[in-house]
Amino acid sequence: MIFSKQVGLHRHLQMCVRALSSLRYKDLQITLTKTPTRTSGDDHLKFGAHISDHMLEVDWTAEHGWDIPQIKPVSPLHIHPAAKVLHYASEIFEGLKAYRCVDGKVRLFRPREHLRRMSATAERACLPAFDQSEFLKCIQKLISVDQEWVPDSKNQSLYVRPTLIGTEPTLGVSASNKAKLFVITTPVGSYFAGGLKPFSLLADPKYVRAWTGGCGGYKMGSNYAPTVAVQKNALEKYGCQQVLWLFGDDHQMTEIGTMNLFIYWVNEQGEKELLTPSLESGLILPGITRKSVLELSRQWKEFYVTEGNITMKTFIKAWNDGRYYSKPHHWMETLDPEEEEKTAGCG
Amino acid sequence: MIFSKQVGLHRHLQMCVRALSSLRYKDLQITLTKTPTRTSGDDHLKFGAHISDHMLEVDWTAEHGWDIPQIKPVSPLHIHPAAKVLHYASEIFEGLKAYRCVDGKVRLFRPREHLRRMSATAERACLPAFDQSEFLKCIQKLISVDQEWVPDSKNQSLYVRPTLIGTEPTLGVSASNKAKLFVITTPVGSYFAGGLKPFSLLADPKYVRAWTGGCGGYKMGSNYAPTVAVQKNALEKYGCQQVLWLFGDDHQMTEIGTMNLFIYWVNEQGEKELLTPSLESGLILPGITRKSVLELSRQWKEFYVTEGNITMKTFIKAWNDGRYYSKPHHWMETLDPEEEEKTAGCG
Repeated sequence: MIFSKQVGLHRHLQMCVRALSSLRYKDLQITLTKTPTRTSGDDHLKFGAHISDHMLEVDWTAEHGWDIPQIKPVSPLHIHPAAKVLHYASEIFEGLKAYRCVDGKVRLFRPREHLRRMSATAERACLPAFDQSEFLKCIQKLISVDQEWVPDSKNQSLYVRPTLIGTEPTLGVSASNKAKLFVITTPVGSYFAGGLKPFSLLADPKYVRAWTGGCGGYKMGSNYAPTVAVQKNALEKYGCQQVLWLFGDDHQMTEIGTMNLFIYWVNEQGEKELLTPSLESGLILPGITRKSVLELSRQWKEFYVTEGNITMKTFIKAWNDGRYYSKPHHWMETLDPEEEEKTAGCG
Repeated sequence: MIFSKQVGLHRHLQMCVRALSSLRYKDLQITLTKTPTRTSGDDHLKFGAHISDHMLEVDWTAEHGWDIPQIKPVSPLHIHPAAKVLHYASEIFEGLKAYRCVDGKVRLFRPREHLRRMSATAERACLPAFDQSEFLKCIQKLISVDQEWVPDSKNQSLYVRPTLIGTEPTLGVSASNKAKLFVITTPVGSYFAGGLKPFSLLADPKYVRAWTGGCGGYKMGSNYAPTVAVQKNALEKYGCQQVLWLFGDDHQMTEIGTMNLFIYWVNEQGEKELLTPSLESGLILPGITRKSVLELSRQWKEFYVTEGNITMKTFIKAWNDGRYYSKPHHWMETLDPEEEEKTAGCG
């Protein structure tokens, strides 16, 4: 009896271990494409339109945890028509970049920061937690497999898109007991077809991107669908490439939707200042580039660096007074992802 | 030359016609399952967990318009991992019910109202327009094909879920140039496992479902993802089945998230009143059942029927004063979908 009880306990422990099955790099299986498609030297890359040959995919269930990760040729996902991702936007993502650096090595820009943010978003969206370090190793391997897709150009990079979706095929609005984590990559130039140059923003207080008590501070798919019509209208009716989202009766400037907002100006106290909206309100996505800009500009000690609010009225007054700058003088040079401790080599 | 110009014009017109290709019931193709799974008499149906055998599916491209509609066995959708639905919540849906009525006929409850709302939501989400009448005929045919799945029970119905998703496989945040319209159905009892009986609501002003200038008034998937964690917390921490969403510093009562809110009470002027939050704010989903309740109760002329705001403070005072009713006396009887002009027969 004692013996059989022990067997029972052992089985129970096995079940527990199985229930906690985590995402492990050492389990990674790789199947390479037989028809690689990379052609060299696309100078005019439309953002996100050319998907690299391979993807990373890992399935999860509440019952068994994470399945083995797989790198395989990019192919359609098989998703049940009742899957929660298709009905209730059970989906979160990240966007980070791999650069081919001057020493020939490929580096990811602050991937640990991105995966930390992704984990926080997953929790808010009731999607499963994953081991960030193991996932990063899998991503690095994926980039290594598709390293020919990392552009060898100062103005281009490989955009990496980790995505986590809820795939349970039932229609109740609830946490998904099945999920799929996947990563695709795509070589990109500037987000805008016109390249890295000034663009116009439409600020229309009629539309609001995020609000306190909502999810504007998380990288959830649900933040984006409501913005598409507003952005389309901005472009087609006003010729504005993006929308500047306002908030509140006093028209606080919040963010651009695909990027954070920074204003480099002489403030009302006559001080040179770099200002970006504060994260406290929960309206602003905590951008990793935002964080880098704040950290670097605070190191420079050349001007005040502030996280706070600014209204359209205050900004327009500054504009009319000529109290603004287009960019700090060594801006672009310093933002290259050279610092080893903030990057992670691939392959 | 004139002749060839005419040929050119004819080709141009052909192209135009092709570009405008609409959704047509007469094009419907039907492939039946070889392994029907319907078993009779499920008394305890978990909402949305048992999907019927067949689905309706129609693809759309900006270039060619609507493809032919197809009824076919339910099977996984093949979705590119870069499809906009998986990243930016490019997804909208409807939920309507087919009832097996006392005369044996199957009727949909106000389907034209549902499809009108779906069209408005599609426009807001930059998803393609469709011919509502032709789509309805396709849905009716689907229900006819799966008519054995329509429960023969007073407390059950066949829940019909039309869904429209953006499938363009590119990562820019923009309107999708490809889409898929599909319909699945599922026999359902009450939305709640406990059946149609009183349930508890958690009202926590820390979380906000919708905001003026957002999309709370449209049936977009993006409204739901942010609510899952709040609802999970309500159930697990407080034993509340749903969330009552508040808005503003004065804690206006707005809606339940999966249903509209009605309060049947004696108001502060001492009048018997049925009150539901107004649609004007854009915070409230314009429910079809909501509309029916308003129309019917206004016909009854037995109490005041008001679309307006009410705060938690006002409601709590009424509650403490005992100025509330649990339900009007002939409520459930009158809401059966018997009126022919508001329903549409199937098959």
